[in-house]
Amino acid sequence: MSELNKVIHEPARLRIMATLISLRKDEQIDFGSLGKLLELSDGNLGSHLQKLETAGYVDIEKTFEGKRPKTYVALTAEGGKAFRAHVKALEKILYE
Amino acid sequence: MSELNKVIHEPARLRIMATLISLRKDEQIDFGSLGKLLELSDGNLGSHLQKLETAGYVDIEKTFEGKRPKTYVALTAEGGKAFRAHVKALEKILYE
Repeated sequence: MSELNKVIHEPARLRIMATLISLRKDEQIDFGSLGKLLELSDGNLGSHLQKLETAGYVDIEKTFEGKRPKTYVALTAEGGKAFRAHVKALEKILYE
Repeated sequence: MSELNKVIHEPARLRIMATLISLRKDEQIDFGSLGKLLELSDGNLGSHLQKLETAGYVDIEKTFEGKRPKTYVALTAEGGKAFRAHVKALEKILYE
């Protein structure tokens, strides 16, 4: 039976991964824009990103722009692979 | 933002609903066959079906065949509607 990926299946993380995979290769999105786009609070987004980072699915880069801290998020190659496998597993359940 | 249905999104329940929606209208499947098909234990399947029944998404009919108790499961109209809405919400996240 095709296995759903529990890290990715959770609704907020599914949205995060779908957003990241729609970026160009190696493109980053900043934390604030991602939260606004997905209507997630900073705390909520931060906690989900941490889980995705622990799984090796996203890279999180903390930097400064002038004196302001800024956080950028990007999909890893492993994250892209895992997301595509998850979508395939979903499609198998929904359409086959 | 399109909302995922938390009752349906859970992996085992997504599989149950996808199986039931593939039946003909008003067709039932027996509990044992459903569990075998989805590789779910009786306890696990029973607990998920209870949640789906509470939400009004499935009908559960307990009956006897001779002296053996037999349980049949079918999708309700409301369940079909909720499942289709959930698939639409998923597709919106995955493909738009």
